[in-house]
Amino acid sequence: MDAGSRIEQALLAAVAHADAPGNPPLLASAMRHAVFPRGARIRPRLCLAVASACGEDEPTLSDAAAAAIELLHCASLVHDDLPCFDNAATRRGRSSVHKAFGEPLAVLTGDALIVLAFQILGQVAAPLERIGIISVAVSRSVGVPSGIVAGQAWECEPSVDLAHYHRAKTGALFAAAAIAGAAAAGSDAEPWRKFGELLGESYQVADDLRDSAGDEEAIGKPTGQDAPLGRPNAVAEFGIEGAIHRLHTLVAESIEAMPTCQGAPMLRALMQSEVKRLVPKKLAQFAA
Amino acid sequence: MDAGSRIEQALLAAVAHADAPGNPPLLASAMRHAVFPRGARIRPRLCLAVASACGEDEPTLSDAAAAAIELLHCASLVHDDLPCFDNAATRRGRSSVHKAFGEPLAVLTGDALIVLAFQILGQVAAPLERIGIISVAVSRSVGVPSGIVAGQAWECEPSVDLAHYHRAKTGALFAAAAIAGAAAAGSDAEPWRKFGELLGESYQVADDLRDSAGDEEAIGKPTGQDAPLGRPNAVAEFGIEGAIHRLHTLVAESIEAMPTCQGAPMLRALMQSEVKRLVPKKLAQFAA
Repeated sequence: MDAGSRIEQALLAAVAHADAPGNPPLLASAMRHAVFPRGARIRPRLCLAVASACGEDEPTLSDAAAAAIELLHCASLVHDDLPCFDNAATRRGRSSVHKAFGEPLAVLTGDALIVLAFQILGQVAAPLERIGIISVAVSRSVGVPSGIVAGQAWECEPSVDLAHYHRAKTGALFAAAAIAGAAAAGSDAEPWRKFGELLGESYQVADDLRDSAGDEEAIGKPTGQDAPLGRPNAVAEFGIEGAIHRLHTLVAESIEAMPTCQGAPMLRALMQSEVKRLVPKKLAQFAA
Repeated sequence: MDAGSRIEQALLAAVAHADAPGNPPLLASAMRHAVFPRGARIRPRLCLAVASACGEDEPTLSDAAAAAIELLHCASLVHDDLPCFDNAATRRGRSSVHKAFGEPLAVLTGDALIVLAFQILGQVAAPLERIGIISVAVSRSVGVPSGIVAGQAWECEPSVDLAHYHRAKTGALFAAAAIAGAAAAGSDAEPWRKFGELLGESYQVADDLRDSAGDEEAIGKPTGQDAPLGRPNAVAEFGIEGAIHRLHTLVAESIEAMPTCQGAPMLRALMQSEVKRLVPKKLAQFAA
């Protein structure tokens, strides 16, 4: 089965927990709305790609790790869209969860998806030591002091360092995806942190480029939001050309940081095709 | 060290994760505000009491489990207090988190505390199999289909079954506290579920009694909220005398459901003293 299908299947199995008797049906619908239909699934694809590059031998565990990471990403989107943050009416081209189900269910959907991520990791039949490494990496990437939640909380501070903000808000979960993939395959996981962090930072720069280019269709959410919200943004800091340059530098650095593994050539090729996909077409002229 | 001090120390150690370099300082303050000063700590005390009754041999693990459970409880209070739910201005006799730090940080504080619970469980140096059992029990007690979040989501449904709502919203975390205590001590954990569920249900009935008795000082939050919010409440359903009768029946049933263990007499005595403490003084006349 290809990576995309494995991820969707693992996510379907995870969200099916909400269909068990006793679960409030609206919460189940809201969770499904938050996770499907598919987004880019870039983090779980990274997780599976690293697992494969490291000689994957416990695919059930890689699938659970990939799904857990995507559930946490979806949870962060649901909470980021809330009226007290972005107040976004749309996400992935349709209603955000709070627009479709109301604010209370949107708060609870985010909470339920966070918990579900740890629930599926705890329940997978796989070597306990690997599960432990993945759980710790995943929790660190979402919590304090430098996970997604901490990253988002920097927006509530009077001043913020751009690199630090991006590392926490995006880099951390990319790092966890890489670490989890390596750990699922039984490889030494920690050397994959730097690789994932750099990839995450590059992805955030690409996202900023798409935001300022107004590439609403590709990005599936309202664009041009960062400047009016006074939010840290690489284009605001470096200009468009500077941001594109930074994106390419970060990808080159992440390729350099990749630990030795049997699937290194495949992984490098994947990254190079991703970076092309991520730069908005109307900005491609700037990419020297 | 007595149970109370062990719990505070474990919680302090957990929340100290937010003091590490890179964490946004306001988030760290808000997390501390949510967890300290101490509430009744009834769930972690139950966890430690069960661990002790089962012949505790890994106190570091029981402490981590107790702290994780209290962090999840605190997280649920922070989110329950949000404007879109109870819109409560006070909690534990002072400002609720969203009143003190604003709504965005309140959402993030709840999220960060949920993640922190799994983070400290993942990092504790203890037998991996016991950690695994505790993580699964804890995640089930908070998530879908029948944990706290699912319980809270029943409030968003057009109709709700009182027993089901209480079991999910309160019983589930009490069950996890009992299961986690037994598992931390290396005992067969699943038989403790029923005991914890019944205790949780009895605690919820006591809470409803205190809400309708307007015992604001003892309860540390605004009372008389259930009726205007149209929320399921045992006093509304059974009347005061009926609710007190139900409370005593539930405690008796939980004592009956207690699995065999070396510390059973101590645990029984603890429960009997708790139930006395929990019935509001002005209602004690009804307790035949």
